[in-house]
Amino acid sequence: MTKIKVLDTPRLNNPVLIEGLPGVGNIGRVAVGYMISELGAKKFAHLYSEHFFPFVMLHDNFEARLLKNEFYYWKAKGKGQRDLILLVGDCQSLSPNGHYDVMETTLDFVEKLGVKEVITIGGLATGEIEEKPGVLGAVTDKKLLKKYKGTGIEFTAGEKVGYIVGAAGLLLGLGNERNISGLCLLGETSGFPIVTDPKAAEAVLRAVTKILGIRLNMSKLDQRVKEMERFIRRVENLQKKALMQISKEEHAPVAEKEQLRYIG
Amino acid sequence: MTKIKVLDTPRLNNPVLIEGLPGVGNIGRVAVGYMISELGAKKFAHLYSEHFFPFVMLHDNFEARLLKNEFYYWKAKGKGQRDLILLVGDCQSLSPNGHYDVMETTLDFVEKLGVKEVITIGGLATGEIEEKPGVLGAVTDKKLLKKYKGTGIEFTAGEKVGYIVGAAGLLLGLGNERNISGLCLLGETSGFPIVTDPKAAEAVLRAVTKILGIRLNMSKLDQRVKEMERFIRRVENLQKKALMQISKEEHAPVAEKEQLRYIG
Amino acid sequence: MTKIKVLDTPRLNNPVLIEGLPGVGNIGRVAVGYMISELGAKKFAHLYSEHFFPFVMLHDNFEARLLKNEFYYWKAKGKGQRDLILLVGDCQSLSPNGHYDVMETTLDFVEKLGVKEVITIGGLATGEIEEKPGVLGAVTDKKLLKKYKGTGIEFTAGEKVGYIVGAAGLLLGLGNERNISGLCLLGETSGFPIVTDPKAAEAVLRAVTKILGIRLNMSKLDQRVKEMERFIRRVENLQKKALMQISKEEHAPVAEKEQLRYIG
Amino acid sequence: MTKIKVLDTPRLNNPVLIEGLPGVGNIGRVAVGYMISELGAKKFAHLYSEHFFPFVMLHDNFEARLLKNEFYYWKAKGKGQRDLILLVGDCQSLSPNGHYDVMETTLDFVEKLGVKEVITIGGLATGEIEEKPGVLGAVTDKKLLKKYKGTGIEFTAGEKVGYIVGAAGLLLGLGNERNISGLCLLGETSGFPIVTDPKAAEAVLRAVTKILGIRLNMSKLDQRVKEMERFIRRVENLQKKALMQISKEEHAPVAEKEQLRYIG
Repeated sequence: MTKIKVLDTPRLNNPVLIEGLPGVGNIGRVAVGYMISELGAKKFAHLYSEHFFPFVMLHDNFEARLLKNEFYYWKAKGKGQRDLILLVGDCQSLSPNGHYDVMETTLDFVEKLGVKEVITIGGLATGEIEEKPGVLGAVTDKKLLKKYKGTGIEFTAGEKVGYIVGAAGLLLGLGNERNISGLCLLGETSGFPIVTDPKAAEAVLRAVTKILGIRLNMSKLDQRVKEMERFIRRVENLQKKALMQISKEEHAPVAEKEQLRYIG
Repeated sequence: MTKIKVLDTPRLNNPVLIEGLPGVGNIGRVAVGYMISELGAKKFAHLYSEHFFPFVMLHDNFEARLLKNEFYYWKAKGKGQRDLILLVGDCQSLSPNGHYDVMETTLDFVEKLGVKEVITIGGLATGEIEEKPGVLGAVTDKKLLKKYKGTGIEFTAGEKVGYIVGAAGLLLGLGNERNISGLCLLGETSGFPIVTDPKAAEAVLRAVTKILGIRLNMSKLDQRVKEMERFIRRVENLQKKALMQISKEEHAPVAEKEQLRYIG
Repeated sequence: MTKIKVLDTPRLNNPVLIEGLPGVGNIGRVAVGYMISELGAKKFAHLYSEHFFPFVMLHDNFEARLLKNEFYYWKAKGKGQRDLILLVGDCQSLSPNGHYDVMETTLDFVEKLGVKEVITIGGLATGEIEEKPGVLGAVTDKKLLKKYKGTGIEFTAGEKVGYIVGAAGLLLGLGNERNISGLCLLGETSGFPIVTDPKAAEAVLRAVTKILGIRLNMSKLDQRVKEMERFIRRVENLQKKALMQISKEEHAPVAEKEQLRYIG
Repeated sequence: MTKIKVLDTPRLNNPVLIEGLPGVGNIGRVAVGYMISELGAKKFAHLYSEHFFPFVMLHDNFEARLLKNEFYYWKAKGKGQRDLILLVGDCQSLSPNGHYDVMETTLDFVEKLGVKEVITIGGLATGEIEEKPGVLGAVTDKKLLKKYKGTGIEFTAGEKVGYIVGAAGLLLGLGNERNISGLCLLGETSGFPIVTDPKAAEAVLRAVTKILGIRLNMSKLDQRVKEMERFIRRVENLQKKALMQISKEEHAPVAEKEQLRYIG
């Protein structure tokens, strides 16, 4: 069960999908989150799934909400710009096979809205503090490379790591099966212990806005990243606590006198 | 496979669903169990699911029964009261994604019976002995808050924990997607080692009966909680034993001479 | 995916299903296996499932076969006897939810053949060597108890353990939802380390043949149990080896220089 | 979700399916890979599945591709030869039940192309260095044995191990249910730590080409195995790293002050 609830059906002209779901360093999450707030993009649909954690989060202290992925749109304002669909959210699939289901459902949805191109954003954990984090790229087709010349993207991700897990990867892989072309941008970041990395997010934002012909004021980025980080950290901690609660219950000791007998 | 077997189809007028499945401190389980016995509510359906543990329990020493969730109804008797559907049961889903399936099936069923409002009851483990356990609340929509003014419910659950796992949470989250409004009541309790907590159950019972315009005689609560506890503890222990049996079988040593060869 | 392949469609008159799949002490497996060989019952269908282990066994050194459950039939020969469907097999479901799927598919199949009654056979691990193993019983309905008076079955299984895992339990529980009445017979056995227990198997065989009005020559039981044990132990060992192989592959060390970088 | 994308629909005359997916020693993978390159077989379809790891691999440093199984065909050139469908790929199913789904989907596909016979290739880990690795065989039916007389295949796999895991086994087992006859060839190899074993691959190649009436120049085998090994090792390492990444995220420590409270 993966369902999309449509709140509004925008008319879009050849839109490109920009994905920024949680992942390594939450680069995509904060980069696309910043684009949404700076562009004033509008929410028009959300997705929920049995592959997400089975709980509700409490927003503003008392408002219960399912874990969700959310779709926003923004209509091109000037020359060289394109209509955008921006995908952010609380989480990705809990189970390996769920990633396929959630992303196929996502592609079914955006394909109907005319999407023929996706840009996904993620992080690459290097294990080192990156003073000037680079942006690595991957594409669905070699032919796309010349399109991205002069953007500063290094197309050497394969050499450095070799794979892209989850939404950022599967939207390219599954999209390619539908003749949707794709670009993945990976910001270099130190790795796991850091929740969000504003420097890496800025690096990918500079690359993606250049590609899209959009100008963003980066002055509020640091502050906005901190605000987003609070929320992202909370979701992460809640999921970890819920995992602990589940495993605590499963491994709790059995009343001793009952341990000796079993049946089947 | 989640199936509902309907034993009787009551005609209900704008009923509210009250959920009390097993969970932290089994607050919901004993509170709604007590409502059912004190109100004399009638069983009219039950649900079973592949997401429950694959065993039968033996009731009264020899009667084999699937693990179930059970639906009871009660018709309003006086002014300011509402028809009720009360949901209790042996267990919740074993697997994370099963929670979504069981709760969507539950909502499909009660929506057809006219349910537009749910109240779920759970526990909040504080790690401390609570002399006067508070009742925390969460809702699907801020607008509902004024409805619950003067009930003593503290709408600060988000601050204190941040999430509600399983049925008590998902009925609100998934219900909200169907425009079913929801309230979750959480009784403060010390936490895991206590099987049931009558004080916390009484606190939530006082809140929920106030909301529903019902008067319950609380004098039998302690005794009834002890009776229910015996059953609840039994189900919990059986599930733990069954888990142990399963993992024992999986991890049993292989005959040694056969360990050296494998194939594929 | 759980599929039944029908090799022959016997005409049966009000048949009773006798289940003896692998389980604690393999009591059911050897008891029903012995009934099949002594009665000369005929195989007419088999079941295979994605919930079984994903391998083929090699029979007679080179013949590859899926893991299966097998259906045999036997037609009543004398007064007081009934047509029988006998269910044995290599294994039960690997995953908890698979048990429900396999048993629902089994019930769909036998219900079409007219089955309104099932007898399942299992073991109860007592942790002690049983010189004179008792036979415990459980039923789907109290009313069935008088039917089994004088058979020596003790209807105290609930007190002693409280649950029946897997096929032996679910056929009763799921059957009851279809108005199929059920009896489960559990032979007392010491527990896990023993692969098969001929004494316990003989005890349940005496009970089940008395109920069915059948006479079996028990003189070959010890020898046949040893033959069956060889096969049963082999299947068990193969499953354990396969589990080890799978987990070995998953936990194998990664080339070290590649450990520092990851992506997502 | 398991999908096959057809790139071309060849007309084939009574083709035989030759399977060589990754497994013990990757014998099948390199043997069938070598057949494909030496015969100049043409790719005509590929399969992807939610049962594969949820990531894309980066080929040639920047081109993102789903994990896939790939179908090639080769048309008979001379007397005694048969049209071939050759199945290779990056991986097998991640979950036990996925193997059944992927192989049933595969059989549905090749059955429509006229396949009535399959040959699967795998490895048998003996735990010893094999100077002259033997080729063990298993079949779907005893009657096939005489067909393979004089090929040097030893039909003693059952005695030596007893089971065949995954694609190499299930194509025989599930195929047999469709009246597709099958042969499995297992090259003896030392076992897990060796990624690929060219000697064992050569042994099975000699057997399978003899059966198929094909002559292959083996002089490039060692070099081609080394090339393939680089790729195979990379896929294996990526899967292990991805597993580590997933489990690292799940087991990361929770902010301490939040550990004391939970809810449900």
